[in-house]
Amino acid sequence: MSYLEKIKCPSDLKKLNISETNALASEIRERIIDILSENGGHVASNLGVVELTLALHRVFDLPKDSIIFDVGHQCYVHKLITGRNDRFDTIRQHNGMSGFTNRAESEYDAFGAGHSGTSVSAALGIAKANKLNGVDAYSVAVVGDGSFTNGMIYEALNNCSADSSNVVIVLNDNEMSISKNVGAMSNYLSEFSNTRWYIKFKNRVYAFCLKTKWFGKFFMAIGRFFKNAIKKLFMTKNYFECLGLKYFGPIDGHDQELLELVFEQAKRRNSPCIVHVITKKGKGYKYAEEKADVFHSVGRFNKENGETAKPKYDFSAAFGDALVDLASQDDDIVAVTAAMEKGTGLSRFAREYKERFFDVGIAEEHALTFCAGLAAAGKKPIFAVYSSFLQRSYDQLIHDVAIQKLPVVVCIDRAGLVPGDGKTHQGIYDSSFLLGIPEFTVYTPENYADLKIALKSAIESNRPCAVRYPKGTEAECISSRFEKAGDFSYGDFGSEAKDVAFITYGRITQNVCLAAKLLEDCGIRVIKLHKIKPIDTEMLFEKCSGYKNILIVEEGIQSGGVGERIALDFGKKGLKTHVHAIDPSLGFSGDLNDLYFDFGFTPEKIANKIRNLYA
Amino acid sequence: MSYLEKIKCPSDLKKLNISETNALASEIRERIIDILSENGGHVASNLGVVELTLALHRVFDLPKDSIIFDVGHQCYVHKLITGRNDRFDTIRQHNGMSGFTNRAESEYDAFGAGHSGTSVSAALGIAKANKLNGVDAYSVAVVGDGSFTNGMIYEALNNCSADSSNVVIVLNDNEMSISKNVGAMSNYLSEFSNTRWYIKFKNRVYAFCLKTKWFGKFFMAIGRFFKNAIKKLFMTKNYFECLGLKYFGPIDGHDQELLELVFEQAKRRNSPCIVHVITKKGKGYKYAEEKADVFHSVGRFNKENGETAKPKYDFSAAFGDALVDLASQDDDIVAVTAAMEKGTGLSRFAREYKERFFDVGIAEEHALTFCAGLAAAGKKPIFAVYSSFLQRSYDQLIHDVAIQKLPVVVCIDRAGLVPGDGKTHQGIYDSSFLLGIPEFTVYTPENYADLKIALKSAIESNRPCAVRYPKGTEAECISSRFEKAGDFSYGDFGSEAKDVAFITYGRITQNVCLAAKLLEDCGIRVIKLHKIKPIDTEMLFEKCSGYKNILIVEEGIQSGGVGERIALDFGKKGLKTHVHAIDPSLGFSGDLNDLYFDFGFTPEKIANKIRNLYA
Repeated sequence: MSYLEKIKCPSDLKKLNISETNALASEIRERIIDILSENGGHVASNLGVVELTLALHRVFDLPKDSIIFDVGHQCYVHKLITGRNDRFDTIRQHNGMSGFTNRAESEYDAFGAGHSGTSVSAALGIAKANKLNGVDAYSVAVVGDGSFTNGMIYEALNNCSADSSNVVIVLNDNEMSISKNVGAMSNYLSEFSNTRWYIKFKNRVYAFCLKTKWFGKFFMAIGRFFKNAIKKLFMTKNYFECLGLKYFGPIDGHDQELLELVFEQAKRRNSPCIVHVITKKGKGYKYAEEKADVFHSVGRFNKENGETAKPKYDFSAAFGDALVDLASQDDDIVAVTAAMEKGTGLSRFAREYKERFFDVGIAEEHALTFCAGLAAAGKKPIFAVYSSFLQRSYDQLIHDVAIQKLPVVVCIDRAGLVPGDGKTHQGIYDSSFLLGIPEFTVYTPENYADLKIALKSAIESNRPCAVRYPKGTEAECISSRFEKAGDFSYGDFGSEAKDVAFITYGRITQNVCLAAKLLEDCGIRVIKLHKIKPIDTEMLFEKCSGYKNILIVEEGIQSGGVGERIALDFGKKGLKTHVHAIDPSLGFSGDLNDLYFDFGFTPEKIANKIRNLYA
Repeated sequence: MSYLEKIKCPSDLKKLNISETNALASEIRERIIDILSENGGHVASNLGVVELTLALHRVFDLPKDSIIFDVGHQCYVHKLITGRNDRFDTIRQHNGMSGFTNRAESEYDAFGAGHSGTSVSAALGIAKANKLNGVDAYSVAVVGDGSFTNGMIYEALNNCSADSSNVVIVLNDNEMSISKNVGAMSNYLSEFSNTRWYIKFKNRVYAFCLKTKWFGKFFMAIGRFFKNAIKKLFMTKNYFECLGLKYFGPIDGHDQELLELVFEQAKRRNSPCIVHVITKKGKGYKYAEEKADVFHSVGRFNKENGETAKPKYDFSAAFGDALVDLASQDDDIVAVTAAMEKGTGLSRFAREYKERFFDVGIAEEHALTFCAGLAAAGKKPIFAVYSSFLQRSYDQLIHDVAIQKLPVVVCIDRAGLVPGDGKTHQGIYDSSFLLGIPEFTVYTPENYADLKIALKSAIESNRPCAVRYPKGTEAECISSRFEKAGDFSYGDFGSEAKDVAFITYGRITQNVCLAAKLLEDCGIRVIKLHKIKPIDTEMLFEKCSGYKNILIVEEGIQSGGVGERIALDFGKKGLKTHVHAIDPSLGFSGDLNDLYFDFGFTPEKIANKIRNLYA
């Protein structure tokens, strides 16, 4: 029986000695590589935190103490040692384990996540609650240095007052967010690591002191006395000390014994503290170490040779190519990303137009206002962002872009259902909240050709615009044969009768057309909107008149979506309107087909919906 | 002719010598006090930045250079000297000048604002655009230390890389946001100021060096050499230097000559820099100096004795009292504010339950996740926040509260139309975006009694909830005689005919009832929703059946609001539904009656809407 199989809960972990723990670490790495080579997932970051996670679990007492993983994608080791090894092969699968922390999944998951920068706020909330409840427990936030570019972390650090004594923040510094990390904080941190001899020397001395117990303590106390005396003399502090945090580090994040000794020290402090740990993304798996960005979030791969599937040409790539084309004809076009150069398809732009490309870190709020600033001074900024992360910029969309009518184009990737990552990563809200924001025009391309046209129109309009498109590849595109009418196009299926008019937009148009084909006995019209805001409902009504029922199919939430908007106008004219949209309260697991099935978006399920209407 | 009357644009300012500038400063203070004692507005912050604003305008060249005021409420001095002295008496009035910066109002307003923390992002965007355009110009962001608790500032600072050479950030440190400032950063800054002898000495030496030109420069160079040598030896930096900014300060913010000399220095640097200026809120007006929090944003006052109108008992106070009552019976209730203790009516709670009260700074994102953390560990957090600022927490509402189904109660003050502050401060989006977020229940009390019941229900429900109420006082409340049915109540007006059923909620119910009274010849039913989510449309339909028309009146945007939601269900049943809501693209100026008039929400205008339906 392997060590890993013996670990049913964290307390089992405490029975191991250091060399057994190191052996367990190897088993965990193997297990992660085994399963993820099949299921895909966040390989590199999890391999990087094996010792760190084990050390935290050996020093702190879960579930009394809480560990909150920022973003939560690096929680696999944590899951393996908190009773979920048996189910680990279901990770990211349909109805399987989440790839992120999830309160509903385990009492050891103190707080769920998926977006960056929330961990310290949550840890602080839990710590304050424990204090009020008279519970003596620690809250530990594990934060990557990538998340340290996010403002929420700073807001929370600013709030870690001296009485938040039981908060420990682990800065997991691997010099990466998804791609190479950016910004002043990153420079500041790497300044530490660059003075390698000093760090190594300090680590050695520190480890020596901690490991030699009594003599070491004496030695350390003397050291601290001198350090403090010098500090007082010059009144200078490091960055974290300025914010009132006790700072430990930098620590070698793969030295199991040292990590545990330092966490023991942190526990004994009566003030919030930060432990700065240096780890290597992909540690222990050659291919992931070498290509940490590829192995950040990866699909199936060959574990023997590290070969990953060649990325398919998808909407992100099509967007990137379209943008490069347009940028070659217009010097004013600039592109902004919030740490997602590769994910949003901007790599080519970044290479070809280095001066006109800005990666601002995981900082969606800042990104959008920065774009507004660029636009105010005459540039044409394009902000490429995932739909779920654009939620972070809701206020800036209104306050900085819409109210000032500035020509910022927001290119919303991962709009609609998103496979693999679960509830926190769905792009189902933007179609609703954008309709409510004044001034914005919202384009909804179904395919690469549509996308290129939409992007061009958006930039040329010189107004606030959004262009939304899904994750993945375009479909075969039945709708390309549709007839155009204003901002939409339409095609007829089945008999001559006027039974149902579908109104839809974006990727799901394909399934709606397939559903129409399944309903051969009926007369069906499919209308595809190229733009969901503004909508010319008069013209739309004209093309729907005579139809007995209207079904609006949206890959987004119903509330505030196109369906409700149209229903209001059509209702006054006596046209019966039904809406088929995403219920955001459900679960979201598995691949795209699983999601389509669960939400009733397969052609069969859409067709059934119509049959039920006539049943 | 006074100096102020002679200043038609900033270049006129440069013709004055220092003593004339000081005289101008006095005139400006007088003018501000004169006009604001009539119009109300942000008195204390504007009196605090007179010398600072004059110095900036004398050193930089607007509109080529840009000054961006964070939040923008401290821009009155700037407005007075950029050609708007003549119109200054219209500030905050109906169709008058905005109380904030506004790009549409003047070419000298480089970027509009209203919410905190956007200035550095905008300044950076403008600086980058200028650089790409080959324009040699400076971008100056003026940020209060209150805004330094906001994460956006940090995201932007993190992004001020060394090539953003033309960015100057002025940290206007008055130790206040609206109330006393909080957090580690505030402590850090006041540590500077507390070592007063050192600061004063440094300021004197600095001023001496700058003012004595050549000898001073030599003297300063020697000083700098030694300082840098010492720094290199110990590798320590102050907070801002860690982030790669050149730091000047702290500087006396009321020493006109010194300020100008330091800004000249900052201009000559080839790196982004921060100038830390100490100012006094309310400077030069005794009453504002003494009661800086009262004079932060104030209505009419007696300029001779500083007497302000006694604040009326309003929704914020009613909320505060209701919460204190409930908290006395339930130890788990805790309250959180984002630097709005007084504004949200939490002062009494903060006094009576000090341990259970948390002011987290101007940090709405953090505030909500912090609440989620508190809830995850068993507390019942209440987050009191203005509707317009809750827009900052849109993602956290979904990601941290809704998805995890945590019992956080968001108490939304200033929901609906908000007088005086213009477009950025309207509470017109929350009723729409909250309907789209799963798990949330949304209460819409019309009066204090409703509010108390709603708050109690929300807390007891142990689920995510929002309670929304407007700025100001309750009306006389015709609807208190209504009959209850489930989550709404209703009353009938006029004849026996079933002409129109109004559906409405919150404060505007009163005007709808008054409109119904004006329509005596018709038969009118008014339905008041106590809750807008979830809505039992079946039950509602029952009470509306037979009515020829439905008019839904909402003090919020139409898109995604209750009206569209109901129209979808009612349309299927053949009931004609109309919606009367707020058009967010219009202007928003003047007092509540002006706003009601402009948006068609007076009883007369609502009644006319019905008459037009039958015309």
